[in-house]
Amino acid sequence: MSVTTAKGFTAAGIAAGIKQNGNPDLALVVNNGPRRAAAGVFTSNRVKAAPVLWSQQVLKGGEVTAVILNSGGANACTGPKGFQDTHATAEKVAEVLGHNAGEVAVASTGLIGVLLPMDKLLPGVEQAAAQLSEHGGEKAAIAIKTTDTVHKTAVHQGWGSPRSSEAESGGGWTVGGMAKGAGMLAPGLATMLVVLTTDADLDSETLDKALRAATRTTFDRVDSDGCMSTNDTVLLLASGASGVTPAYEEFAEGVRAVCDDLARQLIGDAEGASKDIRIEVVNAATEDDAVEVGRSIARNNLLKCAIHGEDPNWGRVLSAIGTTRAAFDPDQLNVAINGIWVCKNGSVGEDRDLVDMRYREVRITADLSAGSESAVIWANDLTAEYVHENSAYSS
Amino acid sequence: MSVTTAKGFTAAGIAAGIKQNGNPDLALVVNNGPRRAAAGVFTSNRVKAAPVLWSQQVLKGGEVTAVILNSGGANACTGPKGFQDTHATAEKVAEVLGHNAGEVAVASTGLIGVLLPMDKLLPGVEQAAAQLSEHGGEKAAIAIKTTDTVHKTAVHQGWGSPRSSEAESGGGWTVGGMAKGAGMLAPGLATMLVVLTTDADLDSETLDKALRAATRTTFDRVDSDGCMSTNDTVLLLASGASGVTPAYEEFAEGVRAVCDDLARQLIGDAEGASKDIRIEVVNAATEDDAVEVGRSIARNNLLKCAIHGEDPNWGRVLSAIGTTRAAFDPDQLNVAINGIWVCKNGSVGEDRDLVDMRYREVRITADLSAGSESAVIWANDLTAEYVHENSAYSS
Repeated sequence: MSVTTAKGFTAAGIAAGIKQNGNPDLALVVNNGPRRAAAGVFTSNRVKAAPVLWSQQVLKGGEVTAVILNSGGANACTGPKGFQDTHATAEKVAEVLGHNAGEVAVASTGLIGVLLPMDKLLPGVEQAAAQLSEHGGEKAAIAIKTTDTVHKTAVHQGWGSPRSSEAESGGGWTVGGMAKGAGMLAPGLATMLVVLTTDADLDSETLDKALRAATRTTFDRVDSDGCMSTNDTVLLLASGASGVTPAYEEFAEGVRAVCDDLARQLIGDAEGASKDIRIEVVNAATEDDAVEVGRSIARNNLLKCAIHGEDPNWGRVLSAIGTTRAAFDPDQLNVAINGIWVCKNGSVGEDRDLVDMRYREVRITADLSAGSESAVIWANDLTAEYVHENSAYSS
Repeated sequence: MSVTTAKGFTAAGIAAGIKQNGNPDLALVVNNGPRRAAAGVFTSNRVKAAPVLWSQQVLKGGEVTAVILNSGGANACTGPKGFQDTHATAEKVAEVLGHNAGEVAVASTGLIGVLLPMDKLLPGVEQAAAQLSEHGGEKAAIAIKTTDTVHKTAVHQGWGSPRSSEAESGGGWTVGGMAKGAGMLAPGLATMLVVLTTDADLDSETLDKALRAATRTTFDRVDSDGCMSTNDTVLLLASGASGVTPAYEEFAEGVRAVCDDLARQLIGDAEGASKDIRIEVVNAATEDDAVEVGRSIARNNLLKCAIHGEDPNWGRVLSAIGTTRAAFDPDQLNVAINGIWVCKNGSVGEDRDLVDMRYREVRITADLSAGSESAVIWANDLTAEYVHENSAYSS
């Protein structure tokens, strides 16, 4: 159930001593081939961590042999020394595995503005390499956790193209993945590191197309707290070890399904959250309008507090919609909370006391009455625990 | 020290029974002339409350005789009935004062989506009119409070143009004002009602110019919680009762000073806040860039939590800057917190342990190294008390 479910991959997760509490903090994922095609998407934050700058260069080559990921330090805003450290980490992985550093992606997560303890990280690379295993996926997923309370993995099984029998295609293919992410989940990616692996036999262009299509409607549409990270990285590695080349649509849907599953897990484990809020904007003039309105609702602190208090405060939804440039007439806005249309035509609708908000998932539907496009954004409520987790210590 | 400091104005504040707890909830401000010039700025939220829609029409005439303001209900998202109620309120004021309803501005604040109790509000208008007084400014300021812990007033005394002696100008002139605002303070105005009065002898065009210039760099640059209200209203009324026509620059500076004072008071009393954060963006390529960066920092929940925890977490400042479109090079960003340059050239700067964050005011300076423009945005920290105030009951 992780990055080692697909054939051709080994992984490891160890405690290198980067985290002061001794928890696992270093993960290594290796693509043993036969092919090593890869694609990646990265944070759109203009302040990018050293490992993001490094890995963006690596991905330009379209091939990735290994990914080394550490928690316990973001290596962001660390200047030239930080970049040197990322480079040295990739070189160490290449040396240990006998590969080229130009095919080693690096990802880091943790506090910004602190240099990594290279005296612990580099020996950790050797230790991780020694423990690489086809069963190492769970341990790798555990080692990338920061304030995550659980590790996150997902798998999709494909069975070849519908146009070919299983016998003809030589069996099935798999997409598996792991993710970490807790706070700072926001569009243009959340604070998250994600590694997806597949044994499908595909080139890097196809991987890139499928990955961008998948992240656009999954990771890019979770907005836990409106904050955008410096380190977000989503990688997709293909080993080709299944010998199967699935039809593009089928493969893309598999990647999307795994991304969707992991994105939902990120929201479900967001820092201090007590509610997962599914915001669906319907009847928008354009998909962009639907996304803009969804994000505006997702980021409204007053609404997030109201949801936390199980208060179906639809006025705050309208107030958030009103700040956008989307096409709508204020007198034609409708809002449902958990299926009850509490706002009709921009004014009071069904009785708000009918709204049952006891459960963790809260569904807000915003009907713009302006077209036929729609989008779903996932967010969290705002709680005293979120404040506590992000004020009581640096993170 | 309020709307009745300037000559020519009377005011009253009473408990009409709109608020269920019996606190004062209705304020009336009357311009007794000789002139009744006025200007107003309103929320840029596209979902506007009925009183905003009404008062925008009134202000088009350039004359306002009276302003009736209620707390205890926003009369927003209340449909045609809500607008009828606003209209009826203005008619009642006009009837009682013997004026024209087309010169009566209306402002409301409180919960969205609930109709006002007109059976209490209309008799309240008569009661308020009966108590109009040249000393009623404080009571009016008290009656517009919602979750404000203190009422807010400010005054600026002008002494005629520097080009004319006091004797020549016939004495001084005054700008006074009152404000209410607690949560939902955001650009394009905060959740606030503000009435400014002056006895300067000026026409509505001059008032409009001075008011827009003043709000642009004061109320529009406070961002307590990133939320934009449906009801924000700032009115400036001139009675001409001083007989003085100050030079424009002098008058504009007076209006700006009063707005600045009131804006600062709004931030100092924001819901649940424990810190007032002054964010100054310097060396920006354009003023728009400086404002965009300032707002992005002001709205970053993770940073707001860190400030609450007295943690000089400059990484979150850089992370927020990185989400903007402003001109900057990530390697040339500098950040000071309370005067300590904790980030230099996009990386670690002076020792963060030198930053003293014990006091309520926290100063963040973001140096973009991209030009010579600057802007100041005021914000608040994010606290468990904010969550509590906005989740424990509807507001």
